[in-house]
Amino acid sequence: MKNLLENITPTLLMGPGPSCVHPSTYHAMSKSTLGHLDPYFIEIMDGIKSGLRTAMGTENNVTVPLSGTGSAGMEAAFVNLVEKGDKVLVIVNGVFGKRMVDLSQRLGAETDELEFEWGTPVLADVVKSQLEKKDYDIVAIVHAETSTGVKNPADKVGKLIAGKALYIVDCVTSLGGMEVSLDKWGADVGYSGTQKCLSCPPGLSPITFSERAMAKIAARKTKVPNWYLDMSLLTSYWGGEKRVYHHTAPVNMMYGLYQSLHLLLEEGLENSHDRHMAAHKQLAAGLGDLGLELFVEKSARLPMLNAVTVPEGVDEAALRSRLLRDFQIEIGAGLGPLAGKIVRIGLMGHTARPENVERLLAALKCCL
Amino acid sequence: MKNLLENITPTLLMGPGPSCVHPSTYHAMSKSTLGHLDPYFIEIMDGIKSGLRTAMGTENNVTVPLSGTGSAGMEAAFVNLVEKGDKVLVIVNGVFGKRMVDLSQRLGAETDELEFEWGTPVLADVVKSQLEKKDYDIVAIVHAETSTGVKNPADKVGKLIAGKALYIVDCVTSLGGMEVSLDKWGADVGYSGTQKCLSCPPGLSPITFSERAMAKIAARKTKVPNWYLDMSLLTSYWGGEKRVYHHTAPVNMMYGLYQSLHLLLEEGLENSHDRHMAAHKQLAAGLGDLGLELFVEKSARLPMLNAVTVPEGVDEAALRSRLLRDFQIEIGAGLGPLAGKIVRIGLMGHTARPENVERLLAALKCCL
Repeated sequence: MKNLLENITPTLLMGPGPSCVHPSTYHAMSKSTLGHLDPYFIEIMDGIKSGLRTAMGTENNVTVPLSGTGSAGMEAAFVNLVEKGDKVLVIVNGVFGKRMVDLSQRLGAETDELEFEWGTPVLADVVKSQLEKKDYDIVAIVHAETSTGVKNPADKVGKLIAGKALYIVDCVTSLGGMEVSLDKWGADVGYSGTQKCLSCPPGLSPITFSERAMAKIAARKTKVPNWYLDMSLLTSYWGGEKRVYHHTAPVNMMYGLYQSLHLLLEEGLENSHDRHMAAHKQLAAGLGDLGLELFVEKSARLPMLNAVTVPEGVDEAALRSRLLRDFQIEIGAGLGPLAGKIVRIGLMGHTARPENVERLLAALKCCL
Repeated sequence: MKNLLENITPTLLMGPGPSCVHPSTYHAMSKSTLGHLDPYFIEIMDGIKSGLRTAMGTENNVTVPLSGTGSAGMEAAFVNLVEKGDKVLVIVNGVFGKRMVDLSQRLGAETDELEFEWGTPVLADVVKSQLEKKDYDIVAIVHAETSTGVKNPADKVGKLIAGKALYIVDCVTSLGGMEVSLDKWGADVGYSGTQKCLSCPPGLSPITFSERAMAKIAARKTKVPNWYLDMSLLTSYWGGEKRVYHHTAPVNMMYGLYQSLHLLLEEGLENSHDRHMAAHKQLAAGLGDLGLELFVEKSARLPMLNAVTVPEGVDEAALRSRLLRDFQIEIGAGLGPLAGKIVRIGLMGHTARPENVERLLAALKCCL
């Protein structure tokens, strides 16, 4: 029987995630599996919780990695907090904001969508007007819109809400690559994914819930319509004196996350943010030299996700294929209405290094 | 900063899962991450789908690993098939049957529970009477009750249903360790986990849906109240001409599953079943020599999950702790009403080998 795994070509991952993984994280994932209730594994779990709190800028007790990818984090945020009839405001300027709207509607919430042009940032003043017009139970925003490369003012919006509603912040793409200070921003729920700036393979979703958020869950009139992601059950596995079995945790993925957090905190959060910004500046300058333009205005650009306008006459699908085939470099396509109009270059985690930017720029020069 | 991963003690996993992992599967999981839309990764995905069809005894087109553990499979089966008001019959004789009842109720189904004494098997005749009394939209059963070590007649129950309802079969613990022939049994949905007899670390849930099941999903009056596990969205990533991004697949876990399926199919399904049965017989005989009794009557025993009655005067928690601390062997506790009354010895996948059974028996001899 042919074994395809024997011929995997190591690839420079410069798309919207997964990002490149540090060798020690791969090594961590291949360590011997322990039982999910083994006391030593529980120590590792506690280490992960502690590392996540530091990375996410929170002191929330309920700060855990969910057994699913970043999208499971979004699902868990909504399915736990939202009950039928709740008034939810979703701030949208890309695919991931839209997805929140879909989720909120599936749960029967009265869902308002405040949309901004894709590729431009959310304007805090417009949010302010909306919050003055209507009271909401829950407000949700995407900090770093992976579909457009736009940075949204999650901090300012948090100040506007100021505890009058529960505040959900999607920090899937930003965590580890730029400041994420959930407590300071007044966020009640924040979630991320492992495969972006944490530089661990995909498979887990770090999430945190404030005491206010947990109180809303405890006061629900109906059970969470999702057993797997029910935080009131999950917390008895992840916390408390005696750990109670809920579902079998993805043990080896947890090793990977532990190691990637270890690397991040050894480097230091600010150093990591600076490294991402430096790689972004290097890339932006190099793209400029090649005559390529970034899709987003300078002040709203994400360092770790660079949307590049596809020049007229260039077949972006062919470009991406050639980069992958001839140069072993992956970059990402545009999503939704931006398909064909932009390509997305990720500089996330272990990918965000000068030699990788140089390698991509040299390859682009050959292709264009 | 202390790194706990440096001191992981390899452990003989003889609990209810996770099971021991073959070195080549660990190695597979540490291979370079590819993008989740990389054409080569899609070939690997196709290999997984094909391997799962063989292992599960199905020709269903929709046969994929979900990005969550076995419990996510149960969640996906119910959340996709069940709509509010549906008539659901859940056959229960353990914790995992009970969990199905909880799930079904959360989704607003009219849920009937047909319960058998825990530790005894489901009786097909009793199911027959119930099916004659009332028409159901969906009937669900656990093939191998991990909480008690009981084998249920999923094949016979399938014949009784004979297409009059949709039939959900939980084969989390059985898949790979005993016959699972979902098409032959008339199952519409079957799901499993990677960390049992497939011998891959936990993190993925293989699941399959028949055409009838997919038709029920297509005809839903309401959207699936779970975006992450919505099969109508997931199938556009896992199938079709052009793969559409849904969520980022857990790439390295997929490598692990690919490799573990590769090992299973190289060995041959029947050989693997025979190996599990041989290990079970060896264990049962050895336990008998030690004066220990199995909790389940002989004809209903699972080969891969052996519930052992705790002898009077034995502190089972202390026994389990000592086995782990002094012998690096993990066995499992009883769950729910069986806590303290039984211990559970798993012989799953790579664990089911004569030398492991011998090692456990020798350790038990020292401890008792």
